[in-house]
Amino acid sequence: MNAKPVLALFNAELRAINLGLDSFAANLDREGAKAIQVDWRPPAGGDVKAIAALDAIAAGTKVDVEKANAEAVRRILAAEPTVIGIGVAKDVVPGMEPDLILHAGPPVTWDRMCGPMRGAVIGGLIFEGLAKTPEEAEKLAASGRIRFDPCHHHDAVGPMAGIMTANMPVWILENKAFGNKAYCTLNEGLGKVLRYGAYSSEVIDRLTWMRDELAPILSKALALHGPIDMKSVIAQILQMGDEGHNRNRAGTSIIIRELAPHIVMLDYPKEKLSRALAFLNANDHFFLNLTMPSAKCTVDAAAGIEGSTIITTMARNGTEFGIKLSGLPGRWFTGPAGVIDGLYLPGFGPEHASRDIGDSVITETSGIGGFAMAAAPAIVKFVGGSPKDAIDVTMRMYEITNAESENYRIPALDFRGTPTGIDVRKVVETGILPAINTGIAHKDPGVGMVGAGLVKPPENAFRDALVAFAEKYAKRL
Amino acid sequence: MNAKPVLALFNAELRAINLGLDSFAANLDREGAKAIQVDWRPPAGGDVKAIAALDAIAAGTKVDVEKANAEAVRRILAAEPTVIGIGVAKDVVPGMEPDLILHAGPPVTWDRMCGPMRGAVIGGLIFEGLAKTPEEAEKLAASGRIRFDPCHHHDAVGPMAGIMTANMPVWILENKAFGNKAYCTLNEGLGKVLRYGAYSSEVIDRLTWMRDELAPILSKALALHGPIDMKSVIAQILQMGDEGHNRNRAGTSIIIRELAPHIVMLDYPKEKLSRALAFLNANDHFFLNLTMPSAKCTVDAAAGIEGSTIITTMARNGTEFGIKLSGLPGRWFTGPAGVIDGLYLPGFGPEHASRDIGDSVITETSGIGGFAMAAAPAIVKFVGGSPKDAIDVTMRMYEITNAESENYRIPALDFRGTPTGIDVRKVVETGILPAINTGIAHKDPGVGMVGAGLVKPPENAFRDALVAFAEKYAKRL
Repeated sequence: MNAKPVLALFNAELRAINLGLDSFAANLDREGAKAIQVDWRPPAGGDVKAIAALDAIAAGTKVDVEKANAEAVRRILAAEPTVIGIGVAKDVVPGMEPDLILHAGPPVTWDRMCGPMRGAVIGGLIFEGLAKTPEEAEKLAASGRIRFDPCHHHDAVGPMAGIMTANMPVWILENKAFGNKAYCTLNEGLGKVLRYGAYSSEVIDRLTWMRDELAPILSKALALHGPIDMKSVIAQILQMGDEGHNRNRAGTSIIIRELAPHIVMLDYPKEKLSRALAFLNANDHFFLNLTMPSAKCTVDAAAGIEGSTIITTMARNGTEFGIKLSGLPGRWFTGPAGVIDGLYLPGFGPEHASRDIGDSVITETSGIGGFAMAAAPAIVKFVGGSPKDAIDVTMRMYEITNAESENYRIPALDFRGTPTGIDVRKVVETGILPAINTGIAHKDPGVGMVGAGLVKPPENAFRDALVAFAEKYAKRL
Repeated sequence: MNAKPVLALFNAELRAINLGLDSFAANLDREGAKAIQVDWRPPAGGDVKAIAALDAIAAGTKVDVEKANAEAVRRILAAEPTVIGIGVAKDVVPGMEPDLILHAGPPVTWDRMCGPMRGAVIGGLIFEGLAKTPEEAEKLAASGRIRFDPCHHHDAVGPMAGIMTANMPVWILENKAFGNKAYCTLNEGLGKVLRYGAYSSEVIDRLTWMRDELAPILSKALALHGPIDMKSVIAQILQMGDEGHNRNRAGTSIIIRELAPHIVMLDYPKEKLSRALAFLNANDHFFLNLTMPSAKCTVDAAAGIEGSTIITTMARNGTEFGIKLSGLPGRWFTGPAGVIDGLYLPGFGPEHASRDIGDSVITETSGIGGFAMAAAPAIVKFVGGSPKDAIDVTMRMYEITNAESENYRIPALDFRGTPTGIDVRKVVETGILPAINTGIAHKDPGVGMVGAGLVKPPENAFRDALVAFAEKYAKRL
């Protein structure tokens, strides 16, 4: 070895690279030495059980995880979500009964339900004619004579409180590539609506009109139009500034323009047809209740693959956030629902906010919504942040997913496919949590929407799922 | 002076900065010296007359140019373009007569018209019943019994060939802030259409249906709806991936969803209403014929301001490209129409292309279209290039404009306003020409659309306008 480089080393200015805690770098800085700070975190945030689970899975599993994940991702990418009709929940949703109320998120009992979910249950019971007043409804809900079950246990999804009762009309979607179906109620608009926990007569009247007039009109128009290929429509809306969760103006527009030529053909008084079209035009979130079941039947096809670490469900009930893994079907892993960081409607603030709620995070699970925020820079006017933040959110999601969509592409990222197929191993190892943008409900029953923003899911749900996966599949733990 | 820095200079590695011709930098590079190449051009591309005009204007003018331009830009930004109705050209367009045919671009005679404009004239004469066959129409057009005039001389604009005849239905727009109006035909769709020079019976039948059925339906629906605030709608479409010239899917969607609740109320056989709605849904360029007159009545309010160097008209007739300056009202400055660099439909290539044609560049003149391409990254699938190119195009346009829109904002540029108010001095001095994206017509009459792309206007039109401005306004030239 030549002596010169060694001397050069000692003569040269000293520059340090500091990993982790930035206080070390700050100290060097104060002494006049230059330090480059690297934002490093230990794997799994240093959680010993999670690290052991990661190591155990890496050391060897009873089933080939990579192969299982490739199959899960293949199924998600091959899905063909299609709107095939509108029906009444009790007629089409598996296991739906008059005494059953479906709700968003993982299982939760009446006594643990958050305010907006209780409000929506009250409204649902009044809508069904099972109670006449909010007090009567509350008593009935607490009596044990009403059963509660997650939408997700019935091939369904529901936004925010996600309340579905027997006589509500529902969209019927079929994943044409795999034959499985998904169901979702019709969107009521923003403001004072059932899904945000409101139950005033204005809310019930609207639900009744939707059941008696809007749904039959849309159902017949859809029959004239023929099935709607949601894969194609979602691909289009990502070129039109929507991300499919909290920005749905383009999607709603496409549904209107596709159905309008058929709505006008129906044998209804024209005032009723006009009211239906005016309602859709006034409700830019109408399309959300189509992206949700579209995402649901997409990821459901990837559930139950032995050895897969792909997340096939994320959902929140306002009390808990829960996930399911493909390789551990039927099991929920939960943590406390998060607090949303966002923008509030005039007169409201964080002190009024319910915690994270709703099945709409199924959009992110399937690779759109928050994962596609780079396609929807204008969404920051609704959920907060800057257009650059929206791009950063999508870029981070590539770190925790195994594939990129071949159909859902983001213009601003040179038409790169959306990050798809969340691998729980990557979430735990990197500590990068799935990005979720969401509405904010008032914490009290009966009020409604107060804002929208971004929320972080609880890290422990992902760690618990990983540990359970290792327990089942690792050769040695 | 300490001797050390001087020594350091001689000991240090030599690095050159090369301005202009890059062959000098390439030579240095070959010798192993590092050279930074700066893409420098002399002002006005070294054109002596143009430099003299720039100098003369800078040295002193009879009217305060900056003040005049501030007023021109104020009027453009204050415009309130509004759709107020649909009428028949002969009833509403100033000076419209049965023997008059309006066309796109600066004035042009039949013998100098390009193929697609001749094709559209033939179709227009057949549509009007003034000729039975293309041969008869050609003979009539050449006979001198038909008068030709630019749309722009009648408060009107027309896309591509821009042919308007007496019995065509037209949109009526009013700039509510200044009271001036603008007119434009209704959009026929893509492919075999009059504005691209096609005149087959399919084209004439469609125009007849538009006159007899579509226009009356839309006119009555618009009356029920009330005036449409185009400033608000254009602001929205820029958040939805449109730029208002060659991408109009969002704009068309908004028009459909706004009018559908009223179309359904009309006393027409429902099949006719359905056909109208289906036509709109099948034609994503329908909105173009609304952004064009919107832009026209916006910039027209800024015309005729003594001493202003703001460009208030750009237009092409397929033979020549022409501009007008606010301070030189009534005068066209022209150059040869450009060759379009773009993407072609299957079976077509540059050998089939007509030159740059149409009044649609009025959108760019008003600060949208090519100037707002950063808002519409997906447009590159239609006109070529990458999403980064689309952003670069908009960024360059800030160099030649005097203001930024307060209403038309670009999400990808952190909601920066679109570049507005083209100053001919800046165009000439920098050599940066207005960015125009446009459709491509087949060069022969009767064929139709073959592609879309970007085109550069002729530099001499801008230099000639500047020289004429200096001749009128400079104290000494």
